[in-house]
Amino acid sequence: MEKIRVELGERSYDIATGSDILDGIGENLKSFGFSPKTAIVSNPTVFSLYGKRVSTSVKKAGFDLITVIIPDGEEYKDLLWLQHIYNELLTHKLDRSSLLIALGGGVIGDITGFAASTYMRGISYVQVPTTLLAQVDSSVGGKTGVNHKLGKNMIGTFWQPRLVWIDIETLKTLPRKELLAGLAEVIKYGVIYDEELFHFLEDYKDKILSLDIAALIHIVKRSCEIKADVVSKDERESGLRAILNYGHTIGHAIETVTGYRRFLHGEAVAIGMYLEAKLSQMLNLIGKAQVFRIKALIDSYGLPSEMPQDIDTKGILLSMQLDKKAVAGILKFILPEKIGRVRIEKGVAEKSIRQALRT
Amino acid sequence: MEKIRVELGERSYDIATGSDILDGIGENLKSFGFSPKTAIVSNPTVFSLYGKRVSTSVKKAGFDLITVIIPDGEEYKDLLWLQHIYNELLTHKLDRSSLLIALGGGVIGDITGFAASTYMRGISYVQVPTTLLAQVDSSVGGKTGVNHKLGKNMIGTFWQPRLVWIDIETLKTLPRKELLAGLAEVIKYGVIYDEELFHFLEDYKDKILSLDIAALIHIVKRSCEIKADVVSKDERESGLRAILNYGHTIGHAIETVTGYRRFLHGEAVAIGMYLEAKLSQMLNLIGKAQVFRIKALIDSYGLPSEMPQDIDTKGILLSMQLDKKAVAGILKFILPEKIGRVRIEKGVAEKSIRQALRT
Repeated sequence: MEKIRVELGERSYDIATGSDILDGIGENLKSFGFSPKTAIVSNPTVFSLYGKRVSTSVKKAGFDLITVIIPDGEEYKDLLWLQHIYNELLTHKLDRSSLLIALGGGVIGDITGFAASTYMRGISYVQVPTTLLAQVDSSVGGKTGVNHKLGKNMIGTFWQPRLVWIDIETLKTLPRKELLAGLAEVIKYGVIYDEELFHFLEDYKDKILSLDIAALIHIVKRSCEIKADVVSKDERESGLRAILNYGHTIGHAIETVTGYRRFLHGEAVAIGMYLEAKLSQMLNLIGKAQVFRIKALIDSYGLPSEMPQDIDTKGILLSMQLDKKAVAGILKFILPEKIGRVRIEKGVAEKSIRQALRT
Repeated sequence: MEKIRVELGERSYDIATGSDILDGIGENLKSFGFSPKTAIVSNPTVFSLYGKRVSTSVKKAGFDLITVIIPDGEEYKDLLWLQHIYNELLTHKLDRSSLLIALGGGVIGDITGFAASTYMRGISYVQVPTTLLAQVDSSVGGKTGVNHKLGKNMIGTFWQPRLVWIDIETLKTLPRKELLAGLAEVIKYGVIYDEELFHFLEDYKDKILSLDIAALIHIVKRSCEIKADVVSKDERESGLRAILNYGHTIGHAIETVTGYRRFLHGEAVAIGMYLEAKLSQMLNLIGKAQVFRIKALIDSYGLPSEMPQDIDTKGILLSMQLDKKAVAGILKFILPEKIGRVRIEKGVAEKSIRQALRT
């Protein structure tokens, strides 16, 4: 098991990554000084696979555990299911020193983190991410939230977990499509921060796709290191942290206009990464060969890179302007300058954006 | 106008106190760099009295203002009305740099602060408290929240305002009963922190009750100074801040068992303050004469100090053990040692508590 430290002063925490480590979590929670009353939040799919192992480990460590189950799917990450969590926590008398354990993917992590940040003005939570996307992205960095009918993640907080516990073995039960979507975020880390990681993804594609544990541990650990480093420098996204949104400005808009049904998040981000690289090329910020390598890597992992012909470019533009990251309608793009380095660019001309979306 | 600084590092802010200063707020908000899109949250009673003056001032300063009205009363400080606020903010496209203005008493301040802390992972808000209770207590210190059917303020955050703007003149339209209830919290500050303030309340009772502006400014300003000092030293209530709960352990329980209908918060706290002083006396921590002075001051302001005979002591005890401040069922009492000084006492014997409740 390897540990990465997210340095955030008194809010610092460890990301533990390893193979077959689920049974060790209870023992690891003992030293924090939490109240006995603890809740595990999960969905039926993940809980049936790993719930018993985690519960047994946590109970063995002396905790008095309740289970809160949320239906599986992004559409349940809302204020209604949040209220269900509150009801359960209050009914079972969890107190200010209690702990929530999020066992699942990004939906479970986000809603559990938000519940933790607002229950009795803030209690502790730990992340046990079981999807690649959650392991390399959403479980680290403290972004929590639920969706609103007028926008995704519109209601949320910054609230850091006390521990992130990643068991790579859980990826063996992850649907292939979700694994690939998670890899899009790993490619992102390569482009924005680490040429070596990008190389590794090019060179070890077969091992990664055949779920070689050592290869998976390497890319998950490196992704977490990069995210930890960025978040440590800019917890609340006032500057640097924005680079993590490479591919997401366009990616989010694609998800929005397609009603979150056509693409997984990572797939939309994959398209966004290529189009934003093209935008960068059109602005003469990056060379053609580098953009080609980005597209080639995305394609090689079976991810989409082109904007589907039937999607209306106007809708994409409008959606980007309404995004919560846009302040007073001004868009921010993360544009690669070379593989391993990006810049934050405000006020790109609408004409250039339209052109990048449609070439 | 006088300003008190709440020192909390990058979350520091001013409390401005003065007479007839409502029209000055817009000008004062200019320098913060907020987005134009701004919302004022209020209730029909307060908005009809002061809404126009505040709105005009804010619009004059160049803001694009929307108004969100919540019905008047503690029973509307819930997740349903919180959703109404979210809907309005999203519909009118408030962004991450937008500002919320809470114009009203504690209910408006708490729900607006909570909305601000969770809208797009946290935006700014300012407090314009119009009740004495909100001016001396709830508007300062960053506690936000809504009620849940299983308990008051169970859902909430710590989220500091950017400014607190107190116009003492608003107390002239406050119902007498609410003014007195607010004075209970002022008496509290005297007992826990400042013998001189206690003296002032004894000596200037007539002026205060006849709404002499200079006397009111003095007690509001001094109360805010004390709260600012305590909050600066312990923002998240891990230690010292608990002293602000003097009178509240028993007070909250009285409110709970009477369904929040029989007593105003300050009235319940007044009873709590006397009973907790008596408890302190029974434990030989304070002299009888001092306890008598506390009771005499409470009584002189027309506030209740004795536990009504028809209230069941068992219910009070149980309610205290379920309070969110109790961790794993262990109660914490704030006990006066003399007027101007208290101590935090854990694990007071149940027998002593029962005795204090019933003598």
